[in-house]
Amino acid sequence: RRPGCWKMLTVAMCVALLGCLRAQELGGHVSVILLGATGDLARKYLWQGLFQLYLDEAGQAYSFSFHGAALTSTKQGQEFIAKVMESLSCPEDVVPGRCAELKGQFQQLSGYHRLKTGEDYAALSTDIEARVQRQGVREAGRIFYFSVPPFAYADIARNINGSCRPDPGAWLRVVLEKPFGHDHLSAQQLAAELGSFFREEEMYRVDHYLGKQAVAQILPFRDQNRKALDGLWNRHHVERVEIIMKETVDAEGRTGFYEEYGVIRDVLQNHLTEVLTLVAMELPHNTSSPESMLQHKLRTFQALRGLQKGSAVLGQYQAYSEQVRREQQKPDTFHSRTPTFAGILVHIDNLRWEGVPFILMSGKALDERVGYVRILFRNQAYCAQNDKRWVAEQSQCLPRQIIFYIGHGELGGPAVLVSRNLFRPSLPPESWKELEGRPGLHLFGRPLSDYYAYGPVREQDAYSVLISRIFHGRKDSFITTENLLASWAFWTPLLDSLAHEVPRLYPGGAENGPLLDFEFRGAQLHFSQRQPEQLVPGPGPAPLPSDFQVLRATYRDSPLISAWPEELIAKLADDIEAAAVRAVRRVGTFHLALSGGSSPVALFQQLASGHFGFPWAHTHLWLVDERCVPLWDPESNFQGLQAHLLQHIRVPYYNVHPMPVHLHQRLCAAEDRGAQMYAGEISALVANSSFDLVLLGMGMDGHTASLFPHSPTGLDGEPLVVLTESPSGPQQRMSLSLPLINRARKVAVLVMGRVKREITMLVSRVGHEPKKWPISGVLPSSGQLVWYMDYEAFLG
Amino acid sequence: RRPGCWKMLTVAMCVALLGCLRAQELGGHVSVILLGATGDLARKYLWQGLFQLYLDEAGQAYSFSFHGAALTSTKQGQEFIAKVMESLSCPEDVVPGRCAELKGQFQQLSGYHRLKTGEDYAALSTDIEARVQRQGVREAGRIFYFSVPPFAYADIARNINGSCRPDPGAWLRVVLEKPFGHDHLSAQQLAAELGSFFREEEMYRVDHYLGKQAVAQILPFRDQNRKALDGLWNRHHVERVEIIMKETVDAEGRTGFYEEYGVIRDVLQNHLTEVLTLVAMELPHNTSSPESMLQHKLRTFQALRGLQKGSAVLGQYQAYSEQVRREQQKPDTFHSRTPTFAGILVHIDNLRWEGVPFILMSGKALDERVGYVRILFRNQAYCAQNDKRWVAEQSQCLPRQIIFYIGHGELGGPAVLVSRNLFRPSLPPESWKELEGRPGLHLFGRPLSDYYAYGPVREQDAYSVLISRIFHGRKDSFITTENLLASWAFWTPLLDSLAHEVPRLYPGGAENGPLLDFEFRGAQLHFSQRQPEQLVPGPGPAPLPSDFQVLRATYRDSPLISAWPEELIAKLADDIEAAAVRAVRRVGTFHLALSGGSSPVALFQQLASGHFGFPWAHTHLWLVDERCVPLWDPESNFQGLQAHLLQHIRVPYYNVHPMPVHLHQRLCAAEDRGAQMYAGEISALVANSSFDLVLLGMGMDGHTASLFPHSPTGLDGEPLVVLTESPSGPQQRMSLSLPLINRARKVAVLVMGRVKREITMLVSRVGHEPKKWPISGVLPSSGQLVWYMDYEAFLG
Repeated sequence: RRPGCWKMLTVAMCVALLGCLRAQELGGHVSVILLGATGDLARKYLWQGLFQLYLDEAGQAYSFSFHGAALTSTKQGQEFIAKVMESLSCPEDVVPGRCAELKGQFQQLSGYHRLKTGEDYAALSTDIEARVQRQGVREAGRIFYFSVPPFAYADIARNINGSCRPDPGAWLRVVLEKPFGHDHLSAQQLAAELGSFFREEEMYRVDHYLGKQAVAQILPFRDQNRKALDGLWNRHHVERVEIIMKETVDAEGRTGFYEEYGVIRDVLQNHLTEVLTLVAMELPHNTSSPESMLQHKLRTFQALRGLQKGSAVLGQYQAYSEQVRREQQKPDTFHSRTPTFAGILVHIDNLRWEGVPFILMSGKALDERVGYVRILFRNQAYCAQNDKRWVAEQSQCLPRQIIFYIGHGELGGPAVLVSRNLFRPSLPPESWKELEGRPGLHLFGRPLSDYYAYGPVREQDAYSVLISRIFHGRKDSFITTENLLASWAFWTPLLDSLAHEVPRLYPGGAENGPLLDFEFRGAQLHFSQRQPEQLVPGPGPAPLPSDFQVLRATYRDSPLISAWPEELIAKLADDIEAAAVRAVRRVGTFHLALSGGSSPVALFQQLASGHFGFPWAHTHLWLVDERCVPLWDPESNFQGLQAHLLQHIRVPYYNVHPMPVHLHQRLCAAEDRGAQMYAGEISALVANSSFDLVLLGMGMDGHTASLFPHSPTGLDGEPLVVLTESPSGPQQRMSLSLPLINRARKVAVLVMGRVKREITMLVSRVGHEPKKWPISGVLPSSGQLVWYMDYEAFLG
Repeated sequence: RRPGCWKMLTVAMCVALLGCLRAQELGGHVSVILLGATGDLARKYLWQGLFQLYLDEAGQAYSFSFHGAALTSTKQGQEFIAKVMESLSCPEDVVPGRCAELKGQFQQLSGYHRLKTGEDYAALSTDIEARVQRQGVREAGRIFYFSVPPFAYADIARNINGSCRPDPGAWLRVVLEKPFGHDHLSAQQLAAELGSFFREEEMYRVDHYLGKQAVAQILPFRDQNRKALDGLWNRHHVERVEIIMKETVDAEGRTGFYEEYGVIRDVLQNHLTEVLTLVAMELPHNTSSPESMLQHKLRTFQALRGLQKGSAVLGQYQAYSEQVRREQQKPDTFHSRTPTFAGILVHIDNLRWEGVPFILMSGKALDERVGYVRILFRNQAYCAQNDKRWVAEQSQCLPRQIIFYIGHGELGGPAVLVSRNLFRPSLPPESWKELEGRPGLHLFGRPLSDYYAYGPVREQDAYSVLISRIFHGRKDSFITTENLLASWAFWTPLLDSLAHEVPRLYPGGAENGPLLDFEFRGAQLHFSQRQPEQLVPGPGPAPLPSDFQVLRATYRDSPLISAWPEELIAKLADDIEAAAVRAVRRVGTFHLALSGGSSPVALFQQLASGHFGFPWAHTHLWLVDERCVPLWDPESNFQGLQAHLLQHIRVPYYNVHPMPVHLHQRLCAAEDRGAQMYAGEISALVANSSFDLVLLGMGMDGHTASLFPHSPTGLDGEPLVVLTESPSGPQQRMSLSLPLINRARKVAVLVMGRVKREITMLVSRVGHEPKKWPISGVLPSSGQLVWYMDYEAFLG
């Protein structure tokens, strides 16, 4: 392949040319076996795509035969195929007489086979070999197109592998249609199973979105407009990216499939994720190398920030449950929780995209059918004249956007739009032409005339495009196993966490109003309208945490603050900030010692995102305890602190005091005197070694910091900092000692979650028994102790 | 004062009420002496303001006398005042007969005094005392309103202080009008001079913008809508703040003043800066305490990021130079460089505002007269319906903004506007009412009906408002000395750096088109249109750096790269990134040793802002040398690295390796073995102690790193890291040694600026003489040495 090819020619032309070159080198007979030939997809798209392939490629160096295959009887299959042949259409520029002729030729080459047993496959293979011999050519290869449900894959794959492979020297290409599994595990299993029959390079997984002309244009566009995009395509300039597929139809008639998959598996995990990678990936210097494209794609997957429950909003159109009840014979009491609408917020944690929201959205029964990718650039201009005087081509204050319009919608077809105040894009003139003006048409807030707008010279169906690419071995338009598994690895945790979520009900169509509008705050998504009226009796929302108040009481003779988790964390963060402000006002610095673990993560996030008055520049951060692992180990408490707090605030480097667990390239060696070093650092910087605030947790065994029951060190005695041993798995720790903790001006103990209920009960009753329950030894000698417990820990 | 007052009543009512309370306590006679009583400002605003004061306050517990004063003869002065008295107007609700009566009373109380000598002032004082005695009341106080040019201040102040102070027990208030100096130094001198005559609490510096109703409403609005604004008023939600004052008039007739001041001193340093602080300051819990208001304002000044040449764009309307030539009798060859238009980008480096652009703009001869503060919030919503279905009150996707409309423009008067999709604001109903609909009126891209829009119940002139506040001792509406000096400290470096800039010429009015539109890229502002045609022969632009190419040559037998500073830094940054990518690909990490000083700052900024592919997560940062000061000392090299690089990228904490110059609470003590520790750290982490890249500079004495001529350590021998002594002032340093530097895979020496010219010449000629010229000892044994010099250093 010639690397410069893309730059000179349209993709289609280029492919055709390469095809010719290769054909002249090789040529021969190609057999296409369409499995599931009598199905919906085959009827609607695939036969037409094969006809198009025949029109484009036959008569060069290749000859073809097309084999429809299914489990249906031969007679029924033949009838079906005869009907399909009639419905085929020729390109616009073919006159009717010639079209009939071409259809007749294609029909001659097409036949039906019932394929059930290994013998059937062997017979097909014999048939093909005979045909090749008759023609006196070599066999170039066989394409097996799986247009069948995934449960049938294994059997068919075994049969092809066992009885229908071409002779060595000819290639085998098997084409697979989604779904490719239901989650990461099932996708792995399916991939492993297929992998036992086919080599990776033999498999072509179709995501038909990659065949859509506007989607297929994303990378060539980025490549051909490198110069203009170079400075723009990053977090400094992109305000947001929207990747949208809206449908007006609903799932009626397909609820069997839909109940099992839902909108995320049906659209987001595959189509929208693929588009996301095309937009976000680093552009390789050589965009014609499938290997480097794949590597860049996989690197983008690695940079995706993990999705959490809060990254999604879910909806379900109102009639859905009834449709499921009817089609699936469910009882009247059945309510589905399958989402038919989802909005997802994706963040990419690399330097190019950090902080840029990628919004993925898809749904059924919406107000319009449209698909698009919209890259909106930040407004970084101030225009000195009144906005009535702004002019589209000149004013940098008008919206600047690039839109890959995938199809339908008000434009009615694929397009590439670039705001005129950005730059005049370069598109291959053989395949894309400027759209004609459509007065009155507004898109994304601006008249069409505000854009450089291009549409394809010839609209092509996605399947025709992809079938051509399969024939030409263009693997970069298909989903490799690694790509597939990376996508499932990204989506599966979200799908798991949403399994029991109740989607918001929506009426469908224009009546949805702003009911499905959503907003993001930090990394969290939520619907803009907080409490919609329930439109039909449905599964119903849970009571809101704000329905409950913060509770004040005492626990072990100290103040107790109890609330739902969100309020509890907010209250604790407020209290810490107040303590910090007081300390800085009093003595100029605030010494805060923090615990690791999962509960403080929410606290860190709260402090990082909502506390603008926090005197971070005057705050010293200390660790309460640390695992004896390098600081960069994911297990390290310091890592949690760094990821969730330090990265988002501005504490001077030298105010951060990780525990010296890693000295002289070894971990917590007593002779390195790390504990003593930390104690010395505390003594030197913290007046009277009295921290302003120590944040502790409580373990299910009553441990706190890394002071475990019956620890020989740290529960009493002189040392301020000690090495200890965790009983659950022999693991060394470093920890502040109880005597040091008890010198603090304030100690806050944060206890969250139902799992803490038992120990909370127990500790409420025990006396001062630090040997048995280290937490019971926390009693600041002249400071204050406050317990922060959520309702689940405190009330069960 | 009752702290809750603001919340219950309008500002004006509240002030009036407090006035009454105080008046009942005290009362007495108040004399107002208007200095410069025959001037423009007095004629246009001040007499009317005094009349309003009389109407509002007289007949309560206070009596008044009003003393116009100037250098004019008594006869002329009296004639002038008689004319002014006729032109006074009563509030709308006063019937004409009553108005004439009130004007008559006011005239009775007003007189003219020629004030020139100390005796004149003494006579005035005697006059006032006699009047007080006649009335049989106590003297409450004297207000001296300086409506005179600043050169007259000192004399008048001396005379007041010497001969016209009221007796103790009565207050003295002197009211000063801008300009308050020309830059930080002159403002300091003026303040010191005034301070020798008056106490701080006696001085009321007027910024009449603070009397504009919409400006005066900013803090009360923030206070009364705390709950709604609390989560919104920060960098997570505010996209930008625009603080704008546009004029249609030009400077004709005032070019004498204008030539000396220009738009930044005339409008931005005072009016727009004051507005900026009102928007940006932390809101004190008690907004009625002038002390805490001042403290919060000053803290905002401290957080302002320093302005640089690149923070501004300047313009000058085309006719200006000709006007100056005519009015100031300048020769035909004279071209003024005084800006009549300025756009400024201000950043505030605190957690609330970091990254939010504050755009300040003002100019003469623009297309409209209008002033406003516009807070635009980020769009953080996705609206699931087509934008044709969005509704103003519900859709979070429509613009969300809060506008304090200061006056003029299409609204024609002051207003407060809040987008309906934000919240319904609370404004004091006694003084602000909802505006009536004005169909067809669009403001900031949306119809007026999209806003909750409020206007004042009664429009008040700024001077009337301020005179009332002076009378009531409301110091929070005036500019304190600290506030003034903080503002000048902020603006003066910019004014200095712009002194020789050539402003862009603009035709004036609507014809300006997009000529004055500007954009920001990072912290840099530039006009959107890069190279306008020169409209009239003017001072003309300098040649652009990009007119020159990057030059490649050799220097001391090693490759030399030379260019203008910007290109040179860009090239060096590119080369470092390439080295990093190669190293990470090869061995997984990149070890980079960086020098301190000023030249690398630009490099750090370039690396921080433009290099998305830089593998920071795998990069270790080392210091080439360090001063023996604590890491947090501004002199520390590490501080520069932290401020300009570390804060903006994501290098893991444990990949950062500051030099251990500060151990056991002391600096570079040999017995703490810090140099050996650093050497040990290098040996442990850097393979063969061979850095991937070492960045060096070159001193004017030929030193490099902290290896000075004739240093007893570091130039040869075993140690990898050494303590050295700087010859300029005995200052200890820690430094990598020459032998260690020469083990690097690549050494880059960055030399910039004309001051390096001489040493550059010299070093080009010397041999290997590290004792005399340490830089000449840099010669990597198996690595590569590259010199990066800008044209000024290399070509002079």
